[in-house]
Amino acid sequence: MAEGAIELQEIAGGCLAARGYLGAAGHCGIKSGGRLDLMLLYSQPAETVAAATITTNSFRAAPTYVTERHVADGHARAVIANSGNANCATGSQGMANALRMAEVAAESLGLPTDSVLVCSTGIIGHQLPMERIEAAIPELAARLSAEEPQRLAEAIMTTDTFPKMYAVAVDIGGHEVRVGGIAKGAGMICPNMATMLAFVTSDAAVSPYALKAALKWAVDRSFNCITVDGCMSTNDTVIAFANGASGAPAIEDTSGPGFEAFSAALLRVCQELAKMIARDGEGASKFVEIRVRGALTFEQARRVGRAVANYNLLKVALFGEQFNWGRVAAALGASGEGIDPKRVEFSIGGVTAWRRGEPAEYDDAAAAEALKQREIAIDIDLGLGQAEATVWTCDLTGNFIRENAAYEGPAEAER
Amino acid sequence: MAEGAIELQEIAGGCLAARGYLGAAGHCGIKSGGRLDLMLLYSQPAETVAAATITTNSFRAAPTYVTERHVADGHARAVIANSGNANCATGSQGMANALRMAEVAAESLGLPTDSVLVCSTGIIGHQLPMERIEAAIPELAARLSAEEPQRLAEAIMTTDTFPKMYAVAVDIGGHEVRVGGIAKGAGMICPNMATMLAFVTSDAAVSPYALKAALKWAVDRSFNCITVDGCMSTNDTVIAFANGASGAPAIEDTSGPGFEAFSAALLRVCQELAKMIARDGEGASKFVEIRVRGALTFEQARRVGRAVANYNLLKVALFGEQFNWGRVAAALGASGEGIDPKRVEFSIGGVTAWRRGEPAEYDDAAAAEALKQREIAIDIDLGLGQAEATVWTCDLTGNFIRENAAYEGPAEAER
Repeated sequence: MAEGAIELQEIAGGCLAARGYLGAAGHCGIKSGGRLDLMLLYSQPAETVAAATITTNSFRAAPTYVTERHVADGHARAVIANSGNANCATGSQGMANALRMAEVAAESLGLPTDSVLVCSTGIIGHQLPMERIEAAIPELAARLSAEEPQRLAEAIMTTDTFPKMYAVAVDIGGHEVRVGGIAKGAGMICPNMATMLAFVTSDAAVSPYALKAALKWAVDRSFNCITVDGCMSTNDTVIAFANGASGAPAIEDTSGPGFEAFSAALLRVCQELAKMIARDGEGASKFVEIRVRGALTFEQARRVGRAVANYNLLKVALFGEQFNWGRVAAALGASGEGIDPKRVEFSIGGVTAWRRGEPAEYDDAAAAEALKQREIAIDIDLGLGQAEATVWTCDLTGNFIRENAAYEGPAEAER
Repeated sequence: MAEGAIELQEIAGGCLAARGYLGAAGHCGIKSGGRLDLMLLYSQPAETVAAATITTNSFRAAPTYVTERHVADGHARAVIANSGNANCATGSQGMANALRMAEVAAESLGLPTDSVLVCSTGIIGHQLPMERIEAAIPELAARLSAEEPQRLAEAIMTTDTFPKMYAVAVDIGGHEVRVGGIAKGAGMICPNMATMLAFVTSDAAVSPYALKAALKWAVDRSFNCITVDGCMSTNDTVIAFANGASGAPAIEDTSGPGFEAFSAALLRVCQELAKMIARDGEGASKFVEIRVRGALTFEQARRVGRAVANYNLLKVALFGEQFNWGRVAAALGASGEGIDPKRVEFSIGGVTAWRRGEPAEYDDAAAAEALKQREIAIDIDLGLGQAEATVWTCDLTGNFIRENAAYEGPAEAER
């Protein structure tokens, strides 16, 4: 499933770039100031295939249970999603409310209830204002269009500072297939899915089995490779649709050039959205790419990358623009991955700090310059094997503390 | 090994409270401003037993290897320790320097080299100024006394805001046995040992086997139950001595009333020192005690407690004095311990927020008041079993970010 020779062309339109998808966004009063807080995404073809990956947090939000159940047969036609309230830790009332969102959306669209998936993001522990949500859903259904993908991206934002959307076109059997998506992130981001939501649409024709496999593979290398604050969330959900509207030949299995092209396109969309989330981490001033190679397995490389990405003291040092490479060493050693300092080599911003058992000589001016950049790469060679992984994160700043210390109740509910 | 009916009396003197111990502290120029940065702790009786627990970080500092080797036979007479420079990630030169510190101290004290243990704490990746250290050690050896335990505690401080010392007396077989210690913490604290150092002395007579067992048990319930920033360090070391100078009957094995009394005293000293470290976490404004019960095992209870204690978003919410109990729920769910929300109950500052599957009704004024306190308890009942553990931590504040973002090189070397 390498991206290798497959040509991907970036296109506009986000989650409405692919053929056969419509959406609408509105404000129903969960967020203050008239900001968009509810969105409906709909696929027109009856035979739309769907897959989802959901947080492994055991204190999961109610809508994740509804989505899990409704996508279990590999088919779904729509997503109803709100921001400003996570509908998490809301007990039996929360479960009823999540299901009710699906019911109302399904009625409005003339679909069976189990064709609708549900997502929520925002504050934990507060009940949804169901009256307003139930009134707003039919209005959204009545004005679906393919015109305003950015409003859908805005309607799922919480503490995000910009809407996140991306789409590509790829050739499958002589047909142009489009894959695009929207996402939200900002805080409580250490997926395995978390308070991250992403909806990816495609007009490829893909079997439920192949879509599920491609999504898991792509999410493992994108959303599951980012971390903002090390805090796994309760609501993380990535949903992918494939509705066949491109007319491209069907992808039934997980091999062959069609599956490879589709997977490459899906990976690109997921990675670009994931990187936008890391870049827009709460309070972030730096975007950090941690490239781990020389690992025994991809999983080990990713675990090491995450251990470094979640090491608070390193994140604060990057914020302070200090070349404090000892914190990379400490994070590697603390990873629990049996790192051998005598085999390890690492650099920050291209400046090598440690080389197989000994500190490296480096130029102080070059080190200072590397840390001044807005984007910083940390390259780590474990010297153990051939596997590699890349993890994206951001720095830990005073603004992160200010944003989260001031984080208030439902009126300004963002998580 | 319950503390139960054993009477412990708090006494003065820290690590020089027990009979037969002498110490000296000085300034050799690793830290700026004439602050104490080198200390020597010495036990007079030839047959002094020693044990140590050392960080599990695989990027360990050089002195931890020397200490590990020198304590392996269960005997040692002295510790030489510096602050301001961790002698970590310093390669072969660092290993030679750590050993040289032991050699010089041993010569000054007229001991074999392997009777001296070595510790360093401070910045990673810089070589020690060995000329100054080698000159200073004999001066310390020449003015050993039992008079100034606080100076020893000050000499191992880095970003600590106060020196940490504690001692108790306990009766063993009709003899007063004293157990006391000093510690330093402040940053890079998520032990499994880290940049935490603690030296505990006792005038009990304890076999190497029994001392090792008692120390491991006490450390597991004290230093390994605190976390400041979730960052496991490279230098953490806890050293315990027992020199028999009390004249109390010898403790050979890990059972019997003598061992129980000694263990209770050791635990008390370790816990009090550990709590001082959490209380003095970098930038901390709150001291947080997380009491987990209803777990299947002590280890599970501690893992859950640590997961909550290390959840950045909760730590920031506590700093902001917000009753954002959803972050406790999210942290529990993210712990990977198979928490079942339907069995869990938890409260913050005595205000119950979640009760077995449903959010609890609570009084907003009481919740606000609970969060205003300088010390906050979080009680969690997992509803799975009978085991329990307590974890201590602090909040995550703007001052933590400021301190660590401004953290500079060797001149102000603190870690």
